[in-house]
Amino acid sequence: MLARLGHVALRTPDLDRSLAFFDGVIGLELVERGDGCAYLRAWGDHEHHTLALIEAADGAVDHAGWRTRAPQDVDAFGARLRADGIEVEDVAAGVEAGQGAALRFRTPAGLPYEIYHDVEKRPPGAGRRPAVKTNSGRPWDHGISPRRLDHVNFVTPDVAAEEAWSQTALGFLTRERIRRDDGTVQGAWLGVSALAHDLALGAGPTAGGRGLHHVAFFVDNASDVLRAAEIFIEHGIEPDHGPGRHAISQAVCVYARDPASGHRVEIYSGSYLVLDPDWPTVEWSQAEYRQWWGAQPSRTEGSPIDVVTPC
Amino acid sequence: MLARLGHVALRTPDLDRSLAFFDGVIGLELVERGDGCAYLRAWGDHEHHTLALIEAADGAVDHAGWRTRAPQDVDAFGARLRADGIEVEDVAAGVEAGQGAALRFRTPAGLPYEIYHDVEKRPPGAGRRPAVKTNSGRPWDHGISPRRLDHVNFVTPDVAAEEAWSQTALGFLTRERIRRDDGTVQGAWLGVSALAHDLALGAGPTAGGRGLHHVAFFVDNASDVLRAAEIFIEHGIEPDHGPGRHAISQAVCVYARDPASGHRVEIYSGSYLVLDPDWPTVEWSQAEYRQWWGAQPSRTEGSPIDVVTPC
Amino acid sequence: MLARLGHVALRTPDLDRSLAFFDGVIGLELVERGDGCAYLRAWGDHEHHTLALIEAADGAVDHAGWRTRAPQDVDAFGARLRADGIEVEDVAAGVEAGQGAALRFRTPAGLPYEIYHDVEKRPPGAGRRPAVKTNSGRPWDHGISPRRLDHVNFVTPDVAAEEAWSQTALGFLTRERIRRDDGTVQGAWLGVSALAHDLALGAGPTAGGRGLHHVAFFVDNASDVLRAAEIFIEHGIEPDHGPGRHAISQAVCVYARDPASGHRVEIYSGSYLVLDPDWPTVEWSQAEYRQWWGAQPSRTEGSPIDVVTPC
Amino acid sequence: MLARLGHVALRTPDLDRSLAFFDGVIGLELVERGDGCAYLRAWGDHEHHTLALIEAADGAVDHAGWRTRAPQDVDAFGARLRADGIEVEDVAAGVEAGQGAALRFRTPAGLPYEIYHDVEKRPPGAGRRPAVKTNSGRPWDHGISPRRLDHVNFVTPDVAAEEAWSQTALGFLTRERIRRDDGTVQGAWLGVSALAHDLALGAGPTAGGRGLHHVAFFVDNASDVLRAAEIFIEHGIEPDHGPGRHAISQAVCVYARDPASGHRVEIYSGSYLVLDPDWPTVEWSQAEYRQWWGAQPSRTEGSPIDVVTPC
Repeated sequence: MLARLGHVALRTPDLDRSLAFFDGVIGLELVERGDGCAYLRAWGDHEHHTLALIEAADGAVDHAGWRTRAPQDVDAFGARLRADGIEVEDVAAGVEAGQGAALRFRTPAGLPYEIYHDVEKRPPGAGRRPAVKTNSGRPWDHGISPRRLDHVNFVTPDVAAEEAWSQTALGFLTRERIRRDDGTVQGAWLGVSALAHDLALGAGPTAGGRGLHHVAFFVDNASDVLRAAEIFIEHGIEPDHGPGRHAISQAVCVYARDPASGHRVEIYSGSYLVLDPDWPTVEWSQAEYRQWWGAQPSRTEGSPIDVVTPC
Repeated sequence: MLARLGHVALRTPDLDRSLAFFDGVIGLELVERGDGCAYLRAWGDHEHHTLALIEAADGAVDHAGWRTRAPQDVDAFGARLRADGIEVEDVAAGVEAGQGAALRFRTPAGLPYEIYHDVEKRPPGAGRRPAVKTNSGRPWDHGISPRRLDHVNFVTPDVAAEEAWSQTALGFLTRERIRRDDGTVQGAWLGVSALAHDLALGAGPTAGGRGLHHVAFFVDNASDVLRAAEIFIEHGIEPDHGPGRHAISQAVCVYARDPASGHRVEIYSGSYLVLDPDWPTVEWSQAEYRQWWGAQPSRTEGSPIDVVTPC
Repeated sequence: MLARLGHVALRTPDLDRSLAFFDGVIGLELVERGDGCAYLRAWGDHEHHTLALIEAADGAVDHAGWRTRAPQDVDAFGARLRADGIEVEDVAAGVEAGQGAALRFRTPAGLPYEIYHDVEKRPPGAGRRPAVKTNSGRPWDHGISPRRLDHVNFVTPDVAAEEAWSQTALGFLTRERIRRDDGTVQGAWLGVSALAHDLALGAGPTAGGRGLHHVAFFVDNASDVLRAAEIFIEHGIEPDHGPGRHAISQAVCVYARDPASGHRVEIYSGSYLVLDPDWPTVEWSQAEYRQWWGAQPSRTEGSPIDVVTPC
Repeated sequence: MLARLGHVALRTPDLDRSLAFFDGVIGLELVERGDGCAYLRAWGDHEHHTLALIEAADGAVDHAGWRTRAPQDVDAFGARLRADGIEVEDVAAGVEAGQGAALRFRTPAGLPYEIYHDVEKRPPGAGRRPAVKTNSGRPWDHGISPRRLDHVNFVTPDVAAEEAWSQTALGFLTRERIRRDDGTVQGAWLGVSALAHDLALGAGPTAGGRGLHHVAFFVDNASDVLRAAEIFIEHGIEPDHGPGRHAISQAVCVYARDPASGHRVEIYSGSYLVLDPDWPTVEWSQAEYRQWWGAQPSRTEGSPIDVVTPC
């Protein structure tokens, strides 16, 4: 069983400029910087990193890393995926900093996933011990300063097929779905944890039909989303959606893209939790679906997905 | 396995006055009113009710209802509890409105628990359809208007013993704990869901050494907690703790008591989630423990616990 | 000298339905209801009323009432306006409930203004005494619950002319202005108090070229504007601008219209104050002007202005 | 006539450490640093500075600077004060950076005041142009990041006497007052602008009976006050009052002291404005007076006042 989205690894053609965005503007903490790589996390993240940045010419998404509930789940997923004919790469412990053995593979839609369990629980850095023992860093230290990684949203050419595969192969449950009048699926929001969703799949305008729509980081309050919008704008980065509130997921949100890599980040708050064991998929028709309130998207293209290059 | 705290049932010597508090001030929705009983829920709760009020002279807490992940878990818990020598009462479907068969029993500390799975998923009432399909009621309709039931906090004479039993008999995990210099436990915060805690156990000044410290309802934003404080005060109800922020659970909070029954409610926001499968219990010494910020408690006594009277 | 915008009087074809909006949704308090009239105010307003509703077929704006700093200023304004050839009507004390003698007249652009000084300072109603002595009502009692009336915004055919007249005849100062590339003025924001503006004048699509764009009520926090948006939407009233933040005035805002009368209300927060005695008019070119963030207007027409009918 | 509190000048035994507090933690912008002096302002302040820090062994408050409405008001105040027997020092233009000719004197209670009008309106620094033309700096750039200077609060041995003098000699109006059962005045809140108060006078425990209780900076939202508390605590600075909300002034507040100088700062939001020209002084008895909600003061001593030393 998957426990949660553990981290996302993004490639960027300019690591320094991407760090200026993810560290300086988003306000993540730089945990470790290697040769062409940087590892970051939010002040309420406890693993070694929740975001990896990898310098690479193509600026594609490298992978989304899903952490399992138990150590033995990694091998079990590997066996099942291989039995289904999926090509699975074994990644040795330590290839990704702070992380144990992992599997990497492409989903039927071509999404680059990693599955792993073992990961270093890194304590706060020297001189950065937060006021509260259950945090790994200091809130409000710099930039937007989100609490934690939340979810990932991919553009896929056939949402219904990828949604079905995510359910059967990886154990995701669909919390909400938009069904078009012609019966096809416009978007699906799926979860493995108590979050409203850990993974979203949506149709959308992206080269090749597949890409990363966004990675979301959570802030505690709707007012923090408004502050995030102002921080983006003061840095000359125009949000490309929001501030607003989704009807689906009920989240208050603002989105902006890293000027260096083009990868989009959502600052996200106020969603619901799925604590009931029998949450029924809530389906919206095209006619029913609308944003709850706020600014509509001005741009919806995802950033590209390419071959997996471990770092 | 338990999924979550499903509801809390509180007795009150004056049902009308308690409704004026829980409906009029807290802003829950009255789902159904029976003979000497009333059932309420928040706008983001989906089951028939998350709070039952029962008119009874003693004004005690009636029970805390824990919902299981699967239907068959109810019988499994019954067998295990009886094997451990605990007297378990079978409650037939429908005895509690909207609810299937349940078990009621006392924990070793005397806490009145119910375990159940089947419960009616009640849609929004006529003319009360909310803007968003994943809600069961309208946010901001009246009073404080919390999103959902969060957790329950009990006063117990021997925290360590009840904590250990809650782990082995019911599957709770301890997220945080305060250990006194003499080695005894001052308080423990335990979870079965992704919430920072579903159940808290604490030592404290209460007649008989056991009681309900509070029932907590969640609001989306810290600013909603401040608004809650003002609503309490405008109704002549002085909060007896907060607004403030706990170091343990990281929650922004304010507490006040129903003038009719004396039961205490916490309005709660901003806590962390436990999405990691290997959250280590974080232990605080007496010296380390402090509130993060805000007003300290002016009163800490719990409300009484007495014999279970189904309604 | 004018002190401030004291009240706005709006006509509505359906007083009961307009009260459902201004009392039930906006959350003003009904102070007094007369024959075809109703008087309301916010919990931080101290005069008899800041909004008058008058039942009349045309549903036009009746007048904007400007209160003077000193009692004798009323006569001084009357003399000056008459000397300028403006037809000024004397309104006897008590014609408008709670109010002393007043002047009514049309500005050169045809805006229906009233100037007055004497007004009843009405204490809180029986059983509605707020927690804090400097308030006249209870915050958060119902609906959006703004603190106070803020400003009024009119559509006028020639902004520059009306702006100049407002300066010389009434003593307004221009705080911000948008100048089109052709040299004409798109909008001007003028003040007599410390508010960023008490009066705005703008060009816009409205029958006859003149109308009320909106009346604004102030809330303390940006988060209260978001809550206002949700209250509008839960009542089936789609905001026609925002939530968003203006660059001009720096206000966080959401706008919606009374379904009965069509008059637009802005819920407004977070602006700057003009405390400096030498605030320079800040002028924006068309190229420079943009909204700070948030949802753009979906509709900008004002509601009509017609002949003045005292009530 | 006075227009507003223009700036406060504080002495500190350690200028670098005080800058770490006022720039690094409070989040003011360093405008200019001279020989033993530093000048700072908030992003919504427009004059050269609203806070001056002066390195001096005694760490006392140097002066509070009141800006007049008109240039000629400075000489008028000088003549009147001298006629009343007050010793007035003429301060030449440029002695205080960015500022024209000024008067310095002690009030009857010994408070060190400055009166001035001419001051440099300094535009944003190079590379620090904010998104909005009516700001002088970038919101959320670092630290707490308040919008503007708000008010100053002094400890005085005889509040009633200083209050009366402030009214007759300087034109302040009293907005609120606490009167003790013995008829003496515990505190008075006075204004010259539309702020609920620009100056507060209170009895309190301070060496010599006179001192600076605090300087207040305004933030737009109550949620920003909560964030300020967390920023103080993450920097190891324990607030000595709040977060809470005053009944008097209605402000949401948190207070903390500069570790280097001991001067106290209030982060302040949500108060009312005095737009009515006839605001009646609201008087609270000892029995009536209470805080609205939140944490009570843990320490109330002011910081010292000594001889005036221009810098």
